[in-house]
Amino acid sequence: MATLGGAHKKHKVTVIGSGNWGSVISKIVAENTAANPQLFERDVRMWVYEEQVTVPEKSKYYDPSSQFSTKPHPLSQLINHFHENVKYLPGIALPKNLIAVPSLEDAVRDSTILIFNLPHQFINRICNQLKGHILPFARGISCIKGVDVTRDRVRLHSEVIGSTLGIYCGALSGANIASEIAEEKWSETTVAYDPPPKDSKAPTPVHTTQEGDVIPDGVVDLAAVDESIETNTPYKPRLVSLPSEYPPLDHRSLKLLFHRPYFHVRMVSDVAGVSLSGALKNVVALAAGFVDGMGWGDNAKAAVMRVGLLEMVKFGQYYFSESVRPATFTEESAGVADLITSCSGGRNFRCAKLSIERGVALDEVERTELNGQSLQGNLTAKEVNEFLKAKGQEDEFPLLTAVYRILEGSAKVEDIPHLLA
Amino acid sequence: MATLGGAHKKHKVTVIGSGNWGSVISKIVAENTAANPQLFERDVRMWVYEEQVTVPEKSKYYDPSSQFSTKPHPLSQLINHFHENVKYLPGIALPKNLIAVPSLEDAVRDSTILIFNLPHQFINRICNQLKGHILPFARGISCIKGVDVTRDRVRLHSEVIGSTLGIYCGALSGANIASEIAEEKWSETTVAYDPPPKDSKAPTPVHTTQEGDVIPDGVVDLAAVDESIETNTPYKPRLVSLPSEYPPLDHRSLKLLFHRPYFHVRMVSDVAGVSLSGALKNVVALAAGFVDGMGWGDNAKAAVMRVGLLEMVKFGQYYFSESVRPATFTEESAGVADLITSCSGGRNFRCAKLSIERGVALDEVERTELNGQSLQGNLTAKEVNEFLKAKGQEDEFPLLTAVYRILEGSAKVEDIPHLLA
Repeated sequence: MATLGGAHKKHKVTVIGSGNWGSVISKIVAENTAANPQLFERDVRMWVYEEQVTVPEKSKYYDPSSQFSTKPHPLSQLINHFHENVKYLPGIALPKNLIAVPSLEDAVRDSTILIFNLPHQFINRICNQLKGHILPFARGISCIKGVDVTRDRVRLHSEVIGSTLGIYCGALSGANIASEIAEEKWSETTVAYDPPPKDSKAPTPVHTTQEGDVIPDGVVDLAAVDESIETNTPYKPRLVSLPSEYPPLDHRSLKLLFHRPYFHVRMVSDVAGVSLSGALKNVVALAAGFVDGMGWGDNAKAAVMRVGLLEMVKFGQYYFSESVRPATFTEESAGVADLITSCSGGRNFRCAKLSIERGVALDEVERTELNGQSLQGNLTAKEVNEFLKAKGQEDEFPLLTAVYRILEGSAKVEDIPHLLA
Repeated sequence: MATLGGAHKKHKVTVIGSGNWGSVISKIVAENTAANPQLFERDVRMWVYEEQVTVPEKSKYYDPSSQFSTKPHPLSQLINHFHENVKYLPGIALPKNLIAVPSLEDAVRDSTILIFNLPHQFINRICNQLKGHILPFARGISCIKGVDVTRDRVRLHSEVIGSTLGIYCGALSGANIASEIAEEKWSETTVAYDPPPKDSKAPTPVHTTQEGDVIPDGVVDLAAVDESIETNTPYKPRLVSLPSEYPPLDHRSLKLLFHRPYFHVRMVSDVAGVSLSGALKNVVALAAGFVDGMGWGDNAKAAVMRVGLLEMVKFGQYYFSESVRPATFTEESAGVADLITSCSGGRNFRCAKLSIERGVALDEVERTELNGQSLQGNLTAKEVNEFLKAKGQEDEFPLLTAVYRILEGSAKVEDIPHLLA
């Protein structure tokens, strides 16, 4: 193939994470590496946080005469034996070229593509463990929804991964309820990736500073990281170019890695927009739940969704003005479609609705319905408010602010129309 | 008030139509004329297509000892007596300054603002009856959803009204289920209005052709109408300026006419975008119903909505490229919010879903569930397809085309993911 030029190596893919969504993404990716042997090595490794699991009785693999059903075995062994994640994705056959690997180091060895799909609270720990064990020219895709918000700044998970490891990291997000995709019910997603253009051309890896000094590729520049935190702009590590032995790693090749007949991919370059959507939509879903709980009907629910969508755009434009495109929110699966799904039957929506119908605080619904687990929207609403308050910009985001005030008890749902007028 | 300059007259408002939605809009407008006496005459007239009605037993005004409950009376009389449209909006109190008028001619006399709110099939007849009876400098707002599509062209209802009467006509549309607004449940709407700028300044009415000939104001230029039909561009009548005795008629004054605490108005200039949204969303709602009927889940439903929204934008950009703004579809109540509402529980959505669940054609559902009444989406899908086919552009609109093919039986819902890939 002309486009592959001098490429004689193939991309090796690792999925870091093997929960419900991690297993579904692993399934998709392994189907695609098998279907595109010109670009990818067939086998995909999936890192499994090892735990001891016994095949449960409801599993079709349950067999009282088998040791797997009578005593605990390492989950990675079960996955490789049955080609099914019997604990986190039961009932779904995984491709045979998907290999569960319990050692993080072994899982990522020589991989050019690292797909991050684990609970966000593990990002830092795992990235620190990965340091020094990945290819310096590896590239990442984060499937982890949400952003990391503090009083002072908003950081994308992909930024944290990228700057910790000194690699470029994009993001995947969309209207993606994992169980539906596992059953190959049709859906769409958005993959945001804006890599160094040289990855497509794969030139000789030489880097110079603005002053002309040659600096080692892939070295994390700590001064630049500090500056990025201070100025709240993404830290852009000096990347090691993809060597020319590999096929280009661009929108085309990533689409081939993720797109399936039942999982349609649109590629964009706006990583910030995709990531922010996945976080802020949960706050909007709370508002939709509140309004629906009041019995205000479909007009009102659509209205808060529309207002929320526009505040999501505005938030991106204010705080990621360099890179955010409004169309990511208003036209992509990661934006409007994910918002619609979350406001239809998502957990944030349902619990917010319940809190109004029962006349109790959302925290109380978390206690009674979720065993005290926190709703993402509840956390994000509070974090985002702290950030906006510090910036003195609460009034610019009346819906996000109204949700926060309802949560803390200083406003009522009845105030929403007035607060948005 | 400084802005009112030499204005000593006030705007007089007439609503043409008194069905369910017409009565709700009349209620809103009459509340606002009373609240804004600096701009509007207090009394709002509502033209009623006269019919003989007896107060029904379930009405709170039913009284077996009253003649209104025992023998038919003209509907306009009942409305003016009870201040309720007992037939089309029972149970909702109408403002006392809303006057039902059975004569079309009397209803519009001296009105500067004409609000059209009647079934679309009556537009032509009513406009022809209105000719010669309205102020030549009147302005219109059409609340009639849909567009008029034939093989050769797409015409907005506001264009038909405007060109027939030689006046400027805007449009109102949004996520507006009438019954919810009648109960003052909060909702939003979009008012699209792009009048001649001179309406804000109210200068001396003098018009010249491009060649410099002075032409009479308000005369419908039949040659220009023909040309507009041939070129499929809106006919722009040479408008009679609003005389300077009236307050300006602009976005600000129209917002005051329609905005209520429970009915939030956003003003835009894109009449075509607002009107097209209100028509095409019904076709997308059929697709959403088909997909939901298959049990494909929330991801798939959000996906067809997203794809549909983008095809709505594209349709506008292709065929109304002069005036359409994508943001009207993706950011306004008339666009994305109305689409969401229609795909949640609208008639088109519900019947399409039923047709899949029962394994019957949509026409069959119309017969059994709607007494043979036609679904707007069913008609629009067929009309739009005829138009696209004539233009050779079916392939540019895969979702609109897929819906048509499913309706005519040459494609199946199962084909949708493939047709959109």
